[in-house]
Amino acid sequence: MSAQTLKGFRDFLPKQMVIRKKVISILEQTFESFGFQPLQTPTLEYAEVLMGKYGEEADKLLYTFEDRGGRKVGLNYDLTVPLARVLAQYTDLPLPFKRYQIQSSYRAENPQKGRYRQFTQCDVDIVGSSSAESDAEIIALIYFSLKKIGFQDFEIRINSRTVSYQLMEKCGIAQDKWSTALQTVDKLDKKSVEELNQEMEKKGLGKQLFDKINPVLMGISDRWVQDKKTGDDYLDLTYQLALAMGVPIQNIVFNPAVVRGLDYYTGPVFETFVKDANIGSVASGGRYDNLIAQLGGPSLPATGTTLGLDRICDVIEEASLWPDLDSTATKILVTIFSLELRQKSMEVALRLRSGNIDTELWLETNDKLDKQLKYADQKGIPFVVIIGPDEASANKVVLKDLKKRTQETLTLDQLIAKLQP
Amino acid sequence: MSAQTLKGFRDFLPKQMVIRKKVISILEQTFESFGFQPLQTPTLEYAEVLMGKYGEEADKLLYTFEDRGGRKVGLNYDLTVPLARVLAQYTDLPLPFKRYQIQSSYRAENPQKGRYRQFTQCDVDIVGSSSAESDAEIIALIYFSLKKIGFQDFEIRINSRTVSYQLMEKCGIAQDKWSTALQTVDKLDKKSVEELNQEMEKKGLGKQLFDKINPVLMGISDRWVQDKKTGDDYLDLTYQLALAMGVPIQNIVFNPAVVRGLDYYTGPVFETFVKDANIGSVASGGRYDNLIAQLGGPSLPATGTTLGLDRICDVIEEASLWPDLDSTATKILVTIFSLELRQKSMEVALRLRSGNIDTELWLETNDKLDKQLKYADQKGIPFVVIIGPDEASANKVVLKDLKKRTQETLTLDQLIAKLQP
Repeated sequence: MSAQTLKGFRDFLPKQMVIRKKVISILEQTFESFGFQPLQTPTLEYAEVLMGKYGEEADKLLYTFEDRGGRKVGLNYDLTVPLARVLAQYTDLPLPFKRYQIQSSYRAENPQKGRYRQFTQCDVDIVGSSSAESDAEIIALIYFSLKKIGFQDFEIRINSRTVSYQLMEKCGIAQDKWSTALQTVDKLDKKSVEELNQEMEKKGLGKQLFDKINPVLMGISDRWVQDKKTGDDYLDLTYQLALAMGVPIQNIVFNPAVVRGLDYYTGPVFETFVKDANIGSVASGGRYDNLIAQLGGPSLPATGTTLGLDRICDVIEEASLWPDLDSTATKILVTIFSLELRQKSMEVALRLRSGNIDTELWLETNDKLDKQLKYADQKGIPFVVIIGPDEASANKVVLKDLKKRTQETLTLDQLIAKLQP
Repeated sequence: MSAQTLKGFRDFLPKQMVIRKKVISILEQTFESFGFQPLQTPTLEYAEVLMGKYGEEADKLLYTFEDRGGRKVGLNYDLTVPLARVLAQYTDLPLPFKRYQIQSSYRAENPQKGRYRQFTQCDVDIVGSSSAESDAEIIALIYFSLKKIGFQDFEIRINSRTVSYQLMEKCGIAQDKWSTALQTVDKLDKKSVEELNQEMEKKGLGKQLFDKINPVLMGISDRWVQDKKTGDDYLDLTYQLALAMGVPIQNIVFNPAVVRGLDYYTGPVFETFVKDANIGSVASGGRYDNLIAQLGGPSLPATGTTLGLDRICDVIEEASLWPDLDSTATKILVTIFSLELRQKSMEVALRLRSGNIDTELWLETNDKLDKQLKYADQKGIPFVVIIGPDEASANKVVLKDLKKRTQETLTLDQLIAKLQP
């Protein structure tokens, strides 16, 4: 019991960290290439900053407790509430405030496959702009992020609240039921029409409701195919601007059934699916013009997205997207042949590092070469260098390629040239 | 009240994040250049994993609470206990396990200048090796890390438990008092001899004790100066190996008064001071051969160090070490001259990004150029590009350098060539 990871939480061992770090690095570079700036907020906030912001359901999932000073505190549930707090607290931030934030959030959910109580969110938001350019830029950011990771076949599905409300109106659903009805519409690609009809009936919205909804959805889609009109001028403009910002036409699709569960979206919404990855949306977001104020911040329009690091890493692993990625950054192990030759090995390690080659030096003097080679193999270090008495006197080294199972004798300069990134 | 950072905690706004991210990047690169691999553990652990590991004082500083499932849980107090848990839990990790871990730790201390309740630790440890090479490598790692950050004048002070115990013996202090007496010796460079004598007397260790201790310390130092012998062969070897691994002789100093507060060190200890920075040690550590087992892990020798990210960033800021560091990664703002010319600006932004230049595009179409320039200035974006009607028809752009207050007309290719990293 004592040596266990807490239920619902995860350790990331070196091999998994290599993928995670590479994804984070690509995302950070992409976010910065669009002029987004990093922000970091604490893990703990005053509980009152967190509570009552997303409804009762969310409050039940909050990790809250009383600290030793008697303060009610909580672990951050997402990165949007801390963003709202920052905007309320630092009133001199230049607007638009374009920030990205890559941090853990914490929710006491029932753990299940792909759902953990601590998970890493990569949030990108533009606060203080109500232009369609901003929404388009978020869509472009999703596209370029996933493109740089190496995903080819993915679809950014866009829709908007305006389109959804038109849908509700045309189907004759009472306005106070739109929110709950749309939550069922949102499941159109996951459940059968029969199941959805039952769900609607249970909610007291009528029988066989999708007999009404489906033709209207079809009509909206048909018009889109014919004249690229969604029924929402703002969304049309967003779409055109996203294309102008470099999103290829095959990666962005208008889908009038996309809703996104959260009540707080006010304009365009988007979610992103990687083909053949049965994992849900890897990048979801939308415009939320009232939320920052509702969360205790100033009254500012905003749009943004969350990229789910854990899901993205899962897709990369499942699709073997990076087959050539070594399981460690370490390029080479410098072995120790004997106590007498230790100094030589140290010099080789020092020279390799000066040549920007990530180099592990064996740290014992009495170990057999076999043991050292086995260690390199276990850790996935691709190369090993040996400096024995013959090599030392000839000022050479033996390089072993553990993947190809070949070896060659080289000068130190040749070795460095060969391994340099 | 509602929009406040929790007491003792901090936000890092974009400007501060630029420095933090750069330091982390340098440290990660250096750690990986020595073959250390990344590890990440959760923020929450079972409370029993954390409690009783560092004594009652530490337990009082733990953030513990009961979660919604009735589990006693706590926020990680350091990164060493999670390391010990990982070693106990994953028994097939290849040894030596050389890991680095850059994460927040949490302690409910009284906040004061430079001390926060959430702080970032950069831990590097070698578990499973009892060779002096391992200790020397940790020292070399400290040296190369600080060197790459740009610190010139810093001192890695080394000592060992063996030397400290010899000191205690020679001063005739009873063995059961060594630990408490050494804690006072550790303050030699911070307090006056008179204060230290009083502290010793309060502890019931005798009057004017430093009249005895100082000459012995002097004797140890003299022998060191004469023949480079510390009195501890293992420490002597560690020192020689650190030099062989590339640590310059002026950056490593034997100091017999260095103790390090924590009881768990068993061999060499080290701490690191940057000259003229009145901030304490920026990199401290040592060998702790019994701790992993005490913390619930397997019985494995270990040595390592913590680099304090917050202190290192403070020194960089105070010493203006990176005067040329821009306050944002964003290199250029592409302005929007008018609705008609928006498309042109979008194309320029796309081209700049393809050229690996971090580019912010202005996201409104009706804003005056003045407003856009002011925004770039506020955010510290060094360049601004303007595409007006004349430029658009001549296929050129105007580049403004906001620092030098100059401007020039360029082709797009010239612009990219000029700004490329």
